[in-house]
Amino acid sequence: MTSSDALPPSRGRFYAVRCKPGEDLLAGLRSFVAARGLKAVSIVTAVGSLNTAPLRLANTGVWETRQGHFEIVSLVGTIDEQGEHLHISLSDRHGVTVGAHFGLGSAVYTTAEIVLVELEDYTFTRKPCSLSGYDELVVEPRRAD
Amino acid sequence: MTSSDALPPSRGRFYAVRCKPGEDLLAGLRSFVAARGLKAVSIVTAVGSLNTAPLRLANTGVWETRQGHFEIVSLVGTIDEQGEHLHISLSDRHGVTVGAHFGLGSAVYTTAEIVLVELEDYTFTRKPCSLSGYDELVVEPRRAD
Amino acid sequence: MTSSDALPPSRGRFYAVRCKPGEDLLAGLRSFVAARGLKAVSIVTAVGSLNTAPLRLANTGVWETRQGHFEIVSLVGTIDEQGEHLHISLSDRHGVTVGAHFGLGSAVYTTAEIVLVELEDYTFTRKPCSLSGYDELVVEPRRAD
Repeated sequence: MTSSDALPPSRGRFYAVRCKPGEDLLAGLRSFVAARGLKAVSIVTAVGSLNTAPLRLANTGVWETRQGHFEIVSLVGTIDEQGEHLHISLSDRHGVTVGAHFGLGSAVYTTAEIVLVELEDYTFTRKPCSLSGYDELVVEPRRAD
Repeated sequence: MTSSDALPPSRGRFYAVRCKPGEDLLAGLRSFVAARGLKAVSIVTAVGSLNTAPLRLANTGVWETRQGHFEIVSLVGTIDEQGEHLHISLSDRHGVTVGAHFGLGSAVYTTAEIVLVELEDYTFTRKPCSLSGYDELVVEPRRAD
Repeated sequence: MTSSDALPPSRGRFYAVRCKPGEDLLAGLRSFVAARGLKAVSIVTAVGSLNTAPLRLANTGVWETRQGHFEIVSLVGTIDEQGEHLHISLSDRHGVTVGAHFGLGSAVYTTAEIVLVELEDYTFTRKPCSLSGYDELVVEPRRAD
């Protein structure tokens, strides 16, 4: 386990937002984070519904879009200035639950309430990882601007 | 994305509670929040099990009660003085996962451990939203009492 | 609802870690918590993937290991000096989601990003509960060392 192993803990400050019907949830989060210059964000909780859900299913590398009426039953991950890593699980009218990597292009159905915490003493970036082959989270101490 | 867009971030203070066998999880949360006068609460994490689970499945408007032995694998949402918006996902003995809007009338099986954060600089309320047709989360600055 | 009912709220301090391919997620968390002497930890968020997942399905008492490529779509629970209580839900290449109690012996596929909060004014322990028959979470005020 790496990244912040040698770092002191970070204080946190919280935000709470609501997405309206039709909004693209991730586009909204990106705008919020950019407008405030947030550098190390974690999802705390998210509750609401989507009727369009762009999902990249595990180990497929392919995006697909699910249409319907879905309850958001989990949304997990981190956001930084350049990007994010988010997974979601969604439940349909039978309670059946689908989960995957989550991306741009969703549409909120009735609402989405999201609580975020910024780790104000850290900066998150993504850098190439030779082990995974992808850009992966790096946690660094926040430098005074 | 609305609500706290123009608000400064909030500090947070944490609570950790355990529900005992037979307890109604949401009734317990409501009592806890009311007894302490909490005004803007987010679920941080919840782990435990239910044997009675009142669920309102996506886009049905109808409550049904699932009976069995279920692991709580997610509980997400917000709580205020007047109400809450919670979704849950539950897994059975085959690992099959059902998710939905969560309400009053559950029964804890062995335990439920819940960590909450109160956003002490915010107040959550629910007000009518013409776009969704429901009362939806509004985030406001906390006024000194 | 018990445990911290009579306790004042706790402040929180945050950690963010990344697990590399092949790492045992829980072993990594235990090492991290032990190395820092953390006494009352909650998962805030976790995102990533596993290709080996040790699961104890609801009400079975039996551990089984799922092999494949799974997205972590939720990880919930608490960690203390002596142990933890964690549940996980995982989604496969079809989006199908399995959830259960989570334990030692996992292997990270590409990455796992985990944000933790320590409740610095509390100590978590597990003590026998006559109602459930298991050791269950007890929340106590942190004593100065």
